[in-house]
Amino acid sequence: MRQAIRLAESVMYLTAPNPRVACLIVRDGRLLASGATQRAGGPHAEVMALRQAAERGIDVRGCTVYVTLEPCSHFGRTPPCVDALIAARPARVVIAMRDPNPLVGGQGIARLQAAGISVTLPVCPEEALALNPGFAARMSRKTPWAWLKLASSIDGRIALPNGQSKWITGAAARADGHHWRARSCVVLTGSGTLQADDPQMNVRHVETERPPIKAVVDTRFEVDEGARIFDGTETWVFTCRPDREKADRLADRNVRVIQLPPSGKRVDLQAMMQWLGEHDVNEVHIEAGARLSGALLDAGCVDELLVYVAPMLLGEGIGMVNMARLDDLSQAQPFEFIDTHPVGPDLRLRARHVQHWNTLLQAVGI
Amino acid sequence: MRQAIRLAESVMYLTAPNPRVACLIVRDGRLLASGATQRAGGPHAEVMALRQAAERGIDVRGCTVYVTLEPCSHFGRTPPCVDALIAARPARVVIAMRDPNPLVGGQGIARLQAAGISVTLPVCPEEALALNPGFAARMSRKTPWAWLKLASSIDGRIALPNGQSKWITGAAARADGHHWRARSCVVLTGSGTLQADDPQMNVRHVETERPPIKAVVDTRFEVDEGARIFDGTETWVFTCRPDREKADRLADRNVRVIQLPPSGKRVDLQAMMQWLGEHDVNEVHIEAGARLSGALLDAGCVDELLVYVAPMLLGEGIGMVNMARLDDLSQAQPFEFIDTHPVGPDLRLRARHVQHWNTLLQAVGI
Repeated sequence: MRQAIRLAESVMYLTAPNPRVACLIVRDGRLLASGATQRAGGPHAEVMALRQAAERGIDVRGCTVYVTLEPCSHFGRTPPCVDALIAARPARVVIAMRDPNPLVGGQGIARLQAAGISVTLPVCPEEALALNPGFAARMSRKTPWAWLKLASSIDGRIALPNGQSKWITGAAARADGHHWRARSCVVLTGSGTLQADDPQMNVRHVETERPPIKAVVDTRFEVDEGARIFDGTETWVFTCRPDREKADRLADRNVRVIQLPPSGKRVDLQAMMQWLGEHDVNEVHIEAGARLSGALLDAGCVDELLVYVAPMLLGEGIGMVNMARLDDLSQAQPFEFIDTHPVGPDLRLRARHVQHWNTLLQAVGI
Repeated sequence: MRQAIRLAESVMYLTAPNPRVACLIVRDGRLLASGATQRAGGPHAEVMALRQAAERGIDVRGCTVYVTLEPCSHFGRTPPCVDALIAARPARVVIAMRDPNPLVGGQGIARLQAAGISVTLPVCPEEALALNPGFAARMSRKTPWAWLKLASSIDGRIALPNGQSKWITGAAARADGHHWRARSCVVLTGSGTLQADDPQMNVRHVETERPPIKAVVDTRFEVDEGARIFDGTETWVFTCRPDREKADRLADRNVRVIQLPPSGKRVDLQAMMQWLGEHDVNEVHIEAGARLSGALLDAGCVDELLVYVAPMLLGEGIGMVNMARLDDLSQAQPFEFIDTHPVGPDLRLRARHVQHWNTLLQAVGI
């Protein structure tokens, strides 16, 4: 199963909004064929693996199939994988985790069992879930999985008092950040960051056939129409004040303006996440200033932290997140560190929201 | 040599002000005997290893000796190890690094070679230096090696705006911090921390025969005589205003009051480090508030950072270090991450001052 998970990682930037899935066909411990899910609309992992076996002239009857997610049992853009598997007549199917969609989860398993195929699960479910937290979140709670990218000094400063912030972390950390942009469905920023830095917010340093959509939280729709983010590739603007004429002009540059209700002084961020979930967004990469980052945290919209820490202390400076003031440490949202990795001279720390993750685990039956 | 370095680590809490050293005696790849330096005044590693060989009835003539530091060639509290080695007539001595004392460095090597013994060095010198940065610093630059212990949230907060700081990091991190206290010669804090928290500043959670001396920076000698730090074990107070009567009263409780010149509004911290170096202090563990921590950084007195990071964001709160304001990122002192380690739910990050470390490397001839 670990080998299957590694194969699924190879399609990390490709499959969304479908999940990243891999399938191995094995007999007597020998790998006969394998496959991973392709771009949306293309074949799923099981079909890819069965196709490879057929091309190699291999009879898969009686063998064991490993798959990182419960095979689908419904018609989407492709026929159900479970039918293809049943037709191939393996003796046993080993499944990493259940389908997180409460409407179909378990049906694939039941169909395989009804066809007389032995089914084993879960196997390495946490690793399998980590491949597809966004798909699991969208299916189970109807919103994407969102990580907040931050870059700071050891003492949590993202800029000096004079605003200087280029570059606290190094080129390797910035390049690594583009891998995280590339795997996401949406790269989200705020109008403050556009005004301050005029970033492109696209994917560089990483080859990808499926670049993420860019999105901006711009409550008062103040964004400069000449901003570099409006480069002709799909961009979404979330606002409370849609200015029809401005929206029409931007539409020519592939910009979609979405009106949302306010919550306090800002776009309702939970409503935004709902909207993103309804529009097939699995994973959101947030790269914003301290105010929007803090507001997203306060609204419970951040599932993971992706923090690049530079080996320096700055003392006075601008803090990482402007959150609502806490009166007691017990009010802090509980994260857990899940990964630490050196990236050039910097460190990359990942921390996951404990409860949000537990909710996903429950959705896949663990 | 790596085996010797691991053996030297076993006397981490024992040997100061002597360096932690280990010695292995090997023939044909087989370990015949080994030893590590004992408490100050006791035998050094080479003598321990030769003694073990003698006890086992092993003739060490013609064998290979591995030692993590150049053998001493001068009479201290014990006779020179180099004489004991020459008398034992090994064929070869492999040395991790040169003695960092500029007055004697190289003499042990020269004496061995003059006696017809083959000498190889350096072997694993960075690992060997990491065993004894304090000894190397005191010998070469006349001041101890000092690390600053910090505990914060991911966003660099050591307390909430209302001052609450117990406990941001967990019990495992606090226990781990005691290992670092135990290996130091001096645990240093400030009068502000004594007033705020009344800590004991002693070593708990770790067995040690050689507890560190406690020290307080108290520029105006305002410390409460009833503070828990004055528990009868040796404590030093650095001040600009020695009050003779108060000092005499504290002397009964094993407190030594040291007058130092001021530098700005505070005790001259560089003069304090000089004084510590003159008084056989190898390693200083600093555990202080944001002001003293920042002042020590500004004075260039911090060689290493020992940071426990809790998996939470706090937003508003008290920052880690009050340093002089920087106008440009290039003014930040250059540290490098050398170790990352999970400690319970928290992370321990270690970062080393690049130039200070390079100076030590030069002192041991690398």
